Amino acid sequence: MQVVMGIDPGAANLGFGVVRVEGSRMVALDGGVVETSPEMAMERRLERIHSSLAELIDWHQPAAMALEDLYFGKNVHSAMAVGRASGAAMLAAAQRGVRCFTYTPQAIKMAVCGSGAAGKQQVQRMVGTLLGLPEPPAPDHAADALAVAICHGGAAGREAAVQGVEEERDAARLAG
Amino acid sequence: MQVVMGIDPGAANLGFGVVRVEGSRMVALDGGVVETSPEMAMERRLERIHSSLAELIDWHQPAAMALEDLYFGKNVHSAMAVGRASGAAMLAAAQRGVRCFTYTPQAIKMAVCGSGAAGKQQVQRMVGTLLGLPEPPAPDHAADALAVAICHGGAAGREAAVQGVEEERDAARLAG
Repeated sequence: MQVVMGIDPGAANLGFGVVRVEGSRMVALDGGVVETSPEMAMERRLERIHSSLAELIDWHQPAAMALEDLYFGKNVHSAMAVGRASGAAMLAAAQRGVRCFTYTPQAIKMAVCGSGAAGKQQVQRMVGTLLGLPEPPAPDHAADALAVAICHGGAAGREAAVQGVEEERDAARLAG
Repeated sequence: MQVVMGIDPGAANLGFGVVRVEGSRMVALDGGVVETSPEMAMERRLERIHSSLAELIDWHQPAAMALEDLYFGKNVHSAMAVGRASGAAMLAAAQRGVRCFTYTPQAIKMAVCGSGAAGKQQVQRMVGTLLGLPEPPAPDHAADALAVAICHGGAAGREAAVQGVEEERDAARLAG
């Protein structure tokens, strides 16, 4: 059982979503958006993002932070802004000993919907289904962040399952 | 008289340079590179950058941080990495109440050499000349960071000069 914090990075709207992985099942613990105004100086916006995530990490004590890595559909200017926001988030994690993992949008769609070409709404519907929510989570950035958390949680869940099988095998070998 | 910290952001090699603006004259106080290994996890690299700059800020107490904004000659992938490093630097500044300012490479070349199309070596030579150093500063990233500091310091110097003239004028008006 481990807690994963997903991040959909952006300077204006940074989505976060927290899930608990219980074997092959996942439960949503939290989700939302850290909003900062374009009227604020960039360094103040980063400080707001950093302190908000620090609080969330202290509260949820995640084992990992999973971030969406946005390379496509972005120009160099917006990639710099997304990079700054994602750097502030990673720093909050690193300072609390939380490991970070990045996933491409394709990998996330594949993990959530079984297809790297899945549409945005399809991903959001599946996030709701996988987390057993009565309807797709909102707003969009929170849903996207939950999708990254699910993507990492799935990998972690499979790893834990493999480890469990290996441990059982080891136990059986020792017992046998 | 104000101290300016210049930053040439990069995840592997982040250059820094500190100058003191004394009217129209500038003096180099410090310069160097924060190096991190590509073998380290990105979040650990950002933590190293953040803590190194926090120490430098505490030591030099700059009034401003000036950062090079790299939009050209970069692809989206490297822009994300530069953005993360620059975000970690900005955060160290913001948490200490230091304002951040960004300048394009063109603006920096224009401020240092009088031409936005000046070559890299020309910029480095002029950085040495403007700071009264016996030879161009090295390594490259430190020289580039000093160039950003000079760019900001020049603007700040002109502002201070204008303010000085205005204050003299006000004083003359009051006296007259």
